[in-house]
Amino acid sequence: MEAVNLLEKFDLLNEYWSPRLVGELNNQAVKIAKLKGEFIWHHHENEDEMFFVIKGELIIKLKDQDILLKENEFFIIPKGTEHKPIAKDEVWVMMFEPISTINTGNIKSDITIDKIERI
Amino acid sequence: MEAVNLLEKFDLLNEYWSPRLVGELNNQAVKIAKLKGEFIWHHHENEDEMFFVIKGELIIKLKDQDILLKENEFFIIPKGTEHKPIAKDEVWVMMFEPISTINTGNIKSDITIDKIERI
Repeated sequence: MEAVNLLEKFDLLNEYWSPRLVGELNNQAVKIAKLKGEFIWHHHENEDEMFFVIKGELIIKLKDQDILLKENEFFIIPKGTEHKPIAKDEVWVMMFEPISTINTGNIKSDITIDKIERI
Repeated sequence: MEAVNLLEKFDLLNEYWSPRLVGELNNQAVKIAKLKGEFIWHHHENEDEMFFVIKGELIIKLKDQDILLKENEFFIIPKGTEHKPIAKDEVWVMMFEPISTINTGNIKSDITIDKIERI
């Protein structure tokens, strides 16, 4: 058993919007991702999702408001809530969510990742 | 709905070893605490527990090894695992664990917090 250094894990990421698993506990996943640009509108039917910003600034668009997240800020998106993450510049995020969570939620597309890779 | 700034939440903490709730999702709690000194040996019967270090250096003693956690490092303590956190200097941690988790686990003492306060 050993500590996980998050910054070393981010060094392994070379694709945007491609989360990787860095930890598991209580049937929940700890994931990290580098984000840049706009993601798609989607929701997660049964899973709340937490975004914690490690570096950069993330906008999470909701239907009726925009949530701006800076470093050391987090936001929990309640299940069923439509959202669209936007990263004007590169953003590093840590996510907490159930292991069952799919990145594009209710939307199936060519950016859907069905099986997440552990790093 | 709004972003949570973790550093602003830490500013509200004025006691060591006294976790506060800063978020809830999927029956899991996001907690923060300031730590300094030595905590007690304990384990959590049914809950894995994640410590993520925001500031400082934390040692998590296990029966057969010491885990050293620096900033941006985390460790997941599997349920049932005896552990004893030690902070030589002040440490700020974010914790992720089931809402049911009690700070002193299987040990009842005068530092047990039965009902956690949300900030």
